[in-house]
Amino acid sequence: MCELFGMSARYPTDVNHSLALLRPRGGEIGPHADGWGVAFYEGRAARIFKEPTPAAESRCLAFIAENDYQSSVVIGHIRKANPAKVGRTAANTHPFSRELGGRSWVFAHNGKLPNIREDPRFALGRFHPIGETDSEHAFCFLLNAITGTGRSEISEQELISVLGGPVLALEQLGEFNFLMSDGVHLIAFASTKLHYVQRNCIEHDCQQRVALLATTPLTAEAWSPLTNGTLYVFAQGELLESVAR
Amino acid sequence: MCELFGMSARYPTDVNHSLALLRPRGGEIGPHADGWGVAFYEGRAARIFKEPTPAAESRCLAFIAENDYQSSVVIGHIRKANPAKVGRTAANTHPFSRELGGRSWVFAHNGKLPNIREDPRFALGRFHPIGETDSEHAFCFLLNAITGTGRSEISEQELISVLGGPVLALEQLGEFNFLMSDGVHLIAFASTKLHYVQRNCIEHDCQQRVALLATTPLTAEAWSPLTNGTLYVFAQGELLESVAR
Repeated sequence: MCELFGMSARYPTDVNHSLALLRPRGGEIGPHADGWGVAFYEGRAARIFKEPTPAAESRCLAFIAENDYQSSVVIGHIRKANPAKVGRTAANTHPFSRELGGRSWVFAHNGKLPNIREDPRFALGRFHPIGETDSEHAFCFLLNAITGTGRSEISEQELISVLGGPVLALEQLGEFNFLMSDGVHLIAFASTKLHYVQRNCIEHDCQQRVALLATTPLTAEAWSPLTNGTLYVFAQGELLESVAR
Repeated sequence: MCELFGMSARYPTDVNHSLALLRPRGGEIGPHADGWGVAFYEGRAARIFKEPTPAAESRCLAFIAENDYQSSVVIGHIRKANPAKVGRTAANTHPFSRELGGRSWVFAHNGKLPNIREDPRFALGRFHPIGETDSEHAFCFLLNAITGTGRSEISEQELISVLGGPVLALEQLGEFNFLMSDGVHLIAFASTKLHYVQRNCIEHDCQQRVALLATTPLTAEAWSPLTNGTLYVFAQGELLESVAR
């Protein structure tokens, strides 16, 4: 399995502290030693750093975690290959990204979706996996659903309405905790585990708001579990919409 | 303007030395201070590092240039924004990439293509720019031409036949030196300047072959200018095909 991390903020901020907490779980105090990746949005573009090597040993991740990248939407992932035969390659390392409608879409997954490739319900159209993971196949399938809307700017209500059916169909295959973003919205689905915590600035006149998501809580704050089987959409640091299966 | 760098090798190798030579041209001994990027292919996937900051000051590029990334195809770029109003953002930083047919395609450009957006000959289809550069628009236009073939594996002859017309049409807009790759082929077009040097291993039994490309020669070796108006395709460290306009 893997660990997921996500952040949505009203104003750009860094996630240095969260990355520093996540990093040792990638091969040091946790078993997720097959790769790591982080996507930082800057407007419609996502800057993605990833390596098919243990996060805990990565000089590159150590560098990033000290570099104060400012972003309003971040998706991070540390990977334990499952099944192990899906190898440690750049192509198999999350998060995945594609351009659709002039913006980067980013996706990371925890769980497994056996037989997705062979199942005719999940045949692909315009987007195709570069690597061998079930995760990237699922991402391409979800993007095809969004392409079907013919629109590049999608509201939170539309996202839920377009993705709801495909997400529930995918979940039936196995375990499907995921984070996905178009740079504005942070979409989250828990099939078995995903937690979040909302941070509101308490200083006078401070309007910052930050929502953090993770498969396993990163801090001693009061993280809430997301309800399994519910699709959530966050933006600007707070929960906007959710719908149960 | 900008500087381009490309490498095609028979066996994976690092480009540490070339990056170290290119780096000071990004804001220290050269004027290209608006961003830098490098794409390293690993199979069908491209790992891309880029920043909208001067290469010469980048701790991230310094880190990469010492990290021995092994690859058979590399495309690098250092940017001077032109016109200056197309800002220093991640979205405007080369190289650009898109997935097509289950592989990453990568593109970087030196020159300018004024009025490309307004010209109905260069209307876009499936792929759209995330940023504001003429370069990314041209890349999307070329990818649409490749999509038209309906094939994901394209030979060097097909690449030249499919891209030849669109490339010459784009060149008429202004200046269009570019490098592009699908992870196998390194495609190069000089409208005004691009040079290459071929390195063959001279040790007994060594089969390595490397072709390096750059807008301005990086070393004291005997770099040859590419013929302006000619589309070249390199693979596995050597020139395979070329066709003149």
